[in-house]
Amino acid sequence: MANSANPPVGIIMGSQSDWPTMKLAAEILDTLDIPYEARIVSAHRTPDRLWDYGKTAVDRGLQVIIAGAGGAAHLPGMMASKTRVPVIGVPIQTRTLSGVDSLYSIVQMPKGFPVATMAIGAAGGANAGLMAAGILALQDPALAERLDAWRAALSASIPEEPVDD
Amino acid sequence: MANSANPPVGIIMGSQSDWPTMKLAAEILDTLDIPYEARIVSAHRTPDRLWDYGKTAVDRGLQVIIAGAGGAAHLPGMMASKTRVPVIGVPIQTRTLSGVDSLYSIVQMPKGFPVATMAIGAAGGANAGLMAAGILALQDPALAERLDAWRAALSASIPEEPVDD
Amino acid sequence: MANSANPPVGIIMGSQSDWPTMKLAAEILDTLDIPYEARIVSAHRTPDRLWDYGKTAVDRGLQVIIAGAGGAAHLPGMMASKTRVPVIGVPIQTRTLSGVDSLYSIVQMPKGFPVATMAIGAAGGANAGLMAAGILALQDPALAERLDAWRAALSASIPEEPVDD
Amino acid sequence: MANSANPPVGIIMGSQSDWPTMKLAAEILDTLDIPYEARIVSAHRTPDRLWDYGKTAVDRGLQVIIAGAGGAAHLPGMMASKTRVPVIGVPIQTRTLSGVDSLYSIVQMPKGFPVATMAIGAAGGANAGLMAAGILALQDPALAERLDAWRAALSASIPEEPVDD
Amino acid sequence: MANSANPPVGIIMGSQSDWPTMKLAAEILDTLDIPYEARIVSAHRTPDRLWDYGKTAVDRGLQVIIAGAGGAAHLPGMMASKTRVPVIGVPIQTRTLSGVDSLYSIVQMPKGFPVATMAIGAAGGANAGLMAAGILALQDPALAERLDAWRAALSASIPEEPVDD
Amino acid sequence: MANSANPPVGIIMGSQSDWPTMKLAAEILDTLDIPYEARIVSAHRTPDRLWDYGKTAVDRGLQVIIAGAGGAAHLPGMMASKTRVPVIGVPIQTRTLSGVDSLYSIVQMPKGFPVATMAIGAAGGANAGLMAAGILALQDPALAERLDAWRAALSASIPEEPVDD
Amino acid sequence: MANSANPPVGIIMGSQSDWPTMKLAAEILDTLDIPYEARIVSAHRTPDRLWDYGKTAVDRGLQVIIAGAGGAAHLPGMMASKTRVPVIGVPIQTRTLSGVDSLYSIVQMPKGFPVATMAIGAAGGANAGLMAAGILALQDPALAERLDAWRAALSASIPEEPVDD
Amino acid sequence: MANSANPPVGIIMGSQSDWPTMKLAAEILDTLDIPYEARIVSAHRTPDRLWDYGKTAVDRGLQVIIAGAGGAAHLPGMMASKTRVPVIGVPIQTRTLSGVDSLYSIVQMPKGFPVATMAIGAAGGANAGLMAAGILALQDPALAERLDAWRAALSASIPEEPVDD
Repeated sequence: MANSANPPVGIIMGSQSDWPTMKLAAEILDTLDIPYEARIVSAHRTPDRLWDYGKTAVDRGLQVIIAGAGGAAHLPGMMASKTRVPVIGVPIQTRTLSGVDSLYSIVQMPKGFPVATMAIGAAGGANAGLMAAGILALQDPALAERLDAWRAALSASIPEEPVDD
Repeated sequence: MANSANPPVGIIMGSQSDWPTMKLAAEILDTLDIPYEARIVSAHRTPDRLWDYGKTAVDRGLQVIIAGAGGAAHLPGMMASKTRVPVIGVPIQTRTLSGVDSLYSIVQMPKGFPVATMAIGAAGGANAGLMAAGILALQDPALAERLDAWRAALSASIPEEPVDD
Repeated sequence: MANSANPPVGIIMGSQSDWPTMKLAAEILDTLDIPYEARIVSAHRTPDRLWDYGKTAVDRGLQVIIAGAGGAAHLPGMMASKTRVPVIGVPIQTRTLSGVDSLYSIVQMPKGFPVATMAIGAAGGANAGLMAAGILALQDPALAERLDAWRAALSASIPEEPVDD
Repeated sequence: MANSANPPVGIIMGSQSDWPTMKLAAEILDTLDIPYEARIVSAHRTPDRLWDYGKTAVDRGLQVIIAGAGGAAHLPGMMASKTRVPVIGVPIQTRTLSGVDSLYSIVQMPKGFPVATMAIGAAGGANAGLMAAGILALQDPALAERLDAWRAALSASIPEEPVDD
Repeated sequence: MANSANPPVGIIMGSQSDWPTMKLAAEILDTLDIPYEARIVSAHRTPDRLWDYGKTAVDRGLQVIIAGAGGAAHLPGMMASKTRVPVIGVPIQTRTLSGVDSLYSIVQMPKGFPVATMAIGAAGGANAGLMAAGILALQDPALAERLDAWRAALSASIPEEPVDD
Repeated sequence: MANSANPPVGIIMGSQSDWPTMKLAAEILDTLDIPYEARIVSAHRTPDRLWDYGKTAVDRGLQVIIAGAGGAAHLPGMMASKTRVPVIGVPIQTRTLSGVDSLYSIVQMPKGFPVATMAIGAAGGANAGLMAAGILALQDPALAERLDAWRAALSASIPEEPVDD
Repeated sequence: MANSANPPVGIIMGSQSDWPTMKLAAEILDTLDIPYEARIVSAHRTPDRLWDYGKTAVDRGLQVIIAGAGGAAHLPGMMASKTRVPVIGVPIQTRTLSGVDSLYSIVQMPKGFPVATMAIGAAGGANAGLMAAGILALQDPALAERLDAWRAALSASIPEEPVDD
Repeated sequence: MANSANPPVGIIMGSQSDWPTMKLAAEILDTLDIPYEARIVSAHRTPDRLWDYGKTAVDRGLQVIIAGAGGAAHLPGMMASKTRVPVIGVPIQTRTLSGVDSLYSIVQMPKGFPVATMAIGAAGGANAGLMAAGILALQDPALAERLDAWRAALSASIPEEPVDD
């Protein structure tokens, strides 16, 4: 369902190397039948792409933007400054600082421009998809049911007791 | 507009002492004409209240839950486990660890239960209100306009040059 | 001795993936002849299981609960809010933050709901078993003797001088 | 009830300056009618006092030792090495490192010598008293009732809604 | 000398509240007779101002841009992405994280867009002015002499022995 | 172009083991046709070499010094104290503290002696070369064009969409 | 006894502002009748003074050098590179990073140049004096006795029980 | 030269697993012809061994004690409380916290009981040997010469330029 026309969700990331994390968001969206597009939008290398993406977001019908970035991770916050569409930020794990740099760069936004920050790394990638689903479900009862079912299945999948490998 | 019947936003917090931070969310909602309720729901001291709040959230018509907590801050994440309504988490600044404990306890959620985490302290309180507004604006064109206006006013308020005190 | 009827110790953990750490507690309990049960109780994925476990703990005769969790580790603290049975918390080592997130989420509990927090990772797993033993030994002179013997043997096992590999 | 003969709880601390924190443990014990003694036992300045305290703990009838220390906080761990009586550790908040040094020095104990570590500072002081109470309540039904009542009163004291100052 | 026409140095900052720190850069520039302008350019609140500033920097004759910001400090890095004029970043001290968030957001730039990062807070503010002077001195022998003299005077001002207050 | 006579850029590092990081600066300089020399100058092991390098820097025609060091990384700051030539510091990633020690030792310089600090590790190495280029380009229009072209090529190299491996 | 001729101990510090901490070392030396000199030697502002101090240390009869510095604290390590006289380092508490920057800059020395690092701040200042005394006592039985007496008096000064203020 | 009778240096460590780090101290002592003994003395597992070692240190002629430990690293500080012989502390690198726990537990000693703390891990191990040598050289001119020669050789071994692998 990736890259359909006028999807409600845009997944953007600073670099191809962020895709293994951001793909986990895409997989959740696929599972929940939510159309999305995936784009590389680097805050520093393609700032004009960021600008255009932000300025056209409302008109293009985007309802949620999921933005992943690592290190001095400026993409989510800059996107939040360019559009009122809710931005979900995913701090990519980094080699030197484990993603604490990404986390601080994304979560510590000043008053006016919130970024809905997720956990560092893989859990954050998947949860960004689920947060997007939760927001879209507010207007889409069928999606709400699918999300409820996904959550129920997750809970049901937990065994009672641990097993040795 | 606080505590109206069936408001779309619930502001919950672990303790009365969190109110100075969480009130900043309430003030944003007041400014943007968004009804809300404010409740003390302590994950540890009133766990059943947390349970009930979570289980009835969808039926009561809540669309966004803003949850603030400090230290071992379990309220936002536990609420996210009880309802699919999007939960925005506000890490309260703490005396010993400055809120890094709150931040980690809120943001590092496992796959399945995202919390949209804001900045530590005052900026996070206000931004939680704005994030809620951004989510609600997806279904409310008039609110979208008010939010756009609020953002435009914020930008317009920035002077060109710094001044000495 | 795992999973005997009405054991005095319950080992609970948020996920199967925590078992390699929590098993070290089980092994200590086995060594000291202390019956226990081991259960997966996820604070977020199975909150009702957590509720039930906590509410029935006293009546089921549990004397100590050992709870391990990682990341936004809410299980130990939430359990402490549901029962007066002493809760020992084990911060699981995590991939991004090495378990500092787990540690802060477990140890920084507010007044009213202590969690007896152990070291991050393997040492914490084993020590949780020993702390449980120390608590139970207060009422069980034979166990006290076994624990004393275990401690004496540990001390006696330390060689006088280091050796090259 | 401080300093009664053969009390079940010993509160020890590295320095007079730790008393404002450790006193919060004493106050909980007073409230719950649990006898205790309070002593200054410095791991570094009075190591022989530490030795004697640890070696006589079992014979003197101590059931729980609450130990507070700050900085390179060696008292709780050294006490745990000298006696099988359960040791609860309270990391005192420090001026330079906010008590992270105290926390790491207390919680990161090697296999064999657990310290039941509480939160840094005031919450940890009070919770040490409650953890001691929870352990003693295992053998004392009347105390269990008092502890349940204390917990119920704490929960009942939480108002429904926050109020402005 | 502030705000002369076509000055070689631009001092920009995210907010009026950054001025007490950034003013220390201005004072160094005043002392060394280097013209500059001081502007408030918020990455999030006035992104278009940032864009314009960056795009016109070369043509306006700017040789060095000093950019200060706090928290999720995106201004220096975003400016570095918009212009090849060297950008010096000043991490503003913050209330919750002491400026570690500002530091990581500024210094951890990806390959392609360096920001010459200074110390957190006051020392960083003053040093930004000195770094700008060092860069300009490469083309301006008279300035090089003034800078040498300033450095010599600083060294000469250090007394031999400490004195009691 | 390494080690030409009187090059404008000196790359110095504390140890041969820093070369894999510092070489990334050299490669950028090679790409941009900027002559440089590369030297091992250990602050602690060869302090007199450091002294001489600093004292002769201006006379030898150095315009920028790139200094990399790890751990207690004193080379960049000591060099900044010996010469007014702009010093760019590269914090080498370390085994125990990931380079946070290097970063703090380099960036937290006192008033008077700025070091233009780059990101920890590989990104910082490459960016040191680019920062040097940006400084030299102020006096060299042809280099400015090459730098602009390099930046444009970097931006142009970013694909629109991520691809699976 | 400060500043006697050819004292065995040199107390050096980067700045007059370090004196309140370093004076605590001086006071210990005064108490133990150990002659010393106190000098301001800034690694960055007076590097040649540092050079001379280090190069003449052995010939001047210095037996221990106590060096305090804050932030990017290069003085102790650079002194250790210039002389084989043992160097004791005192990390001064800093405003932004509480002295963690000072600690890392002093303690993380590479192989070859140890600095005997003390605690951050006041405790470290006093302990530097005691460490110097312990080293000198190896050759001075009378001093060894005075040090033993000082230690005994410290231990004897600890009361048995804490008292309310 | 290890384990000769009445050696001036004692190398002690908490566990066999610390030997790879502590052996680096032994190798330096071997190189400099300084006799030493190496012992495993666990603060927690063999506290009486620690006591005895400390109490007999002066009489046995020990002049320097090198103590390595990891995690809640109490050995160096406890040894410093038992003897006035100078104690050099080596923070062993740990799996979860990289040795920051070891460092804080060793360096943050209270007034009265200094531990001369070295770098975390391998560099700290080797430097402990060199610091011991520097202390002993104060009374041993031949050793002073050997140490000077070792330092000169280290400096002389540094090549002028880095080489590709």
